[in-house]
Amino acid sequence: MERLPISHTDYLWFNAPRRKHLYHITDEVRRVVRDSGVREGFCLVGAMHITAAIWVNDNESGLHQDIDAWLEQLAPLGPDYHHHRTGEDNGDAHLKALLLGRQVLLPVTDGELDLGPWEQVFYHEFDGRRRKRVIIKVCGF
Amino acid sequence: MERLPISHTDYLWFNAPRRKHLYHITDEVRRVVRDSGVREGFCLVGAMHITAAIWVNDNESGLHQDIDAWLEQLAPLGPDYHHHRTGEDNGDAHLKALLLGRQVLLPVTDGELDLGPWEQVFYHEFDGRRRKRVIIKVCGF
Amino acid sequence: MERLPISHTDYLWFNAPRRKHLYHITDEVRRVVRDSGVREGFCLVGAMHITAAIWVNDNESGLHQDIDAWLEQLAPLGPDYHHHRTGEDNGDAHLKALLLGRQVLLPVTDGELDLGPWEQVFYHEFDGRRRKRVIIKVCGF
Repeated sequence: MERLPISHTDYLWFNAPRRKHLYHITDEVRRVVRDSGVREGFCLVGAMHITAAIWVNDNESGLHQDIDAWLEQLAPLGPDYHHHRTGEDNGDAHLKALLLGRQVLLPVTDGELDLGPWEQVFYHEFDGRRRKRVIIKVCGF
Repeated sequence: MERLPISHTDYLWFNAPRRKHLYHITDEVRRVVRDSGVREGFCLVGAMHITAAIWVNDNESGLHQDIDAWLEQLAPLGPDYHHHRTGEDNGDAHLKALLLGRQVLLPVTDGELDLGPWEQVFYHEFDGRRRKRVIIKVCGF
Repeated sequence: MERLPISHTDYLWFNAPRRKHLYHITDEVRRVVRDSGVREGFCLVGAMHITAAIWVNDNESGLHQDIDAWLEQLAPLGPDYHHHRTGEDNGDAHLKALLLGRQVLLPVTDGELDLGPWEQVFYHEFDGRRRKRVIIKVCGF
């Protein structure tokens, strides 16, 4: 059986109603993996804007509150960022995105996301109220 | 010479004797890369549970003490996480995992891990005393 | 049309004139992607030394000042690291690298980096005044 490389790219768009918002996107990622036809390979999920993060963790609302409070402690919303000289007010959002990371790479095995029992994929918006994009790219064979 | 894509997936299991434990896993990762037959590609090493991290840095015990102290400062063990309403006591472990990251992607060149002189791979457990898994997936040709 | 897998690996060398230095390397990464001949795939950009980071964010000098101040707050330069018993003085640089991460994986679509409008790639040196290396590896077809 010949195995030729396959690539499949999709994009999700978001427009959060407020500054911060957390989206659970595991189902969308699974759909793109199935659409790709890839049986073995990697699936990149990446925020394409620089004030949002992609991370994998538990889908538990208490934990999500803890993550939010922790981010505000380590990279607080505030007026005193040098970046604000450009007219922006989202210095904190850049730091939050750097802290959590803009992307994850998910293994694809036997045509499915190869995730642990509690692993779920989230898009975390830190500077919403504008259209923003996430890339999902699956490469393999 | 025909070059067809190759994928090889292996899993490591851990059951740490205590809450926190650091495992040096570079040799295991090298073994999986050799088993894969991949000459050129990428090797994903990822924690499949959400309270552990994979990172690459120096194998030096003083540095490991510094990392532990630093994590306790930025994401301390404690009773006051909302996540604990579920009955868990590992809120800190989730934050530590998010801080350090759940995965690394290692380049494979000429059939070997293409690492810098001091780069070593570690599995960092933050909530042990249960069976937990790490995926090592090598894709290339 | 047959599509066979391609891999292309390049290395950048740096020797920063001082302890900390930020290099904007998007153009070098684009060049390596074009040299690779890859139309669809992934481009790994990774620091090969353990006291430097690779990250993607805005090319804005005020933001870069904010990132520097933030790193000094969360992982300060100082004399009190256990790691310094080895004779090194760069404990902070290891922590800064762990915080921001040693690598990014960039999607390659239609032969080009598939980046968002403000995404730029940076090499962030935290322990300069020595020769250090970055790997750029493009795999796809």
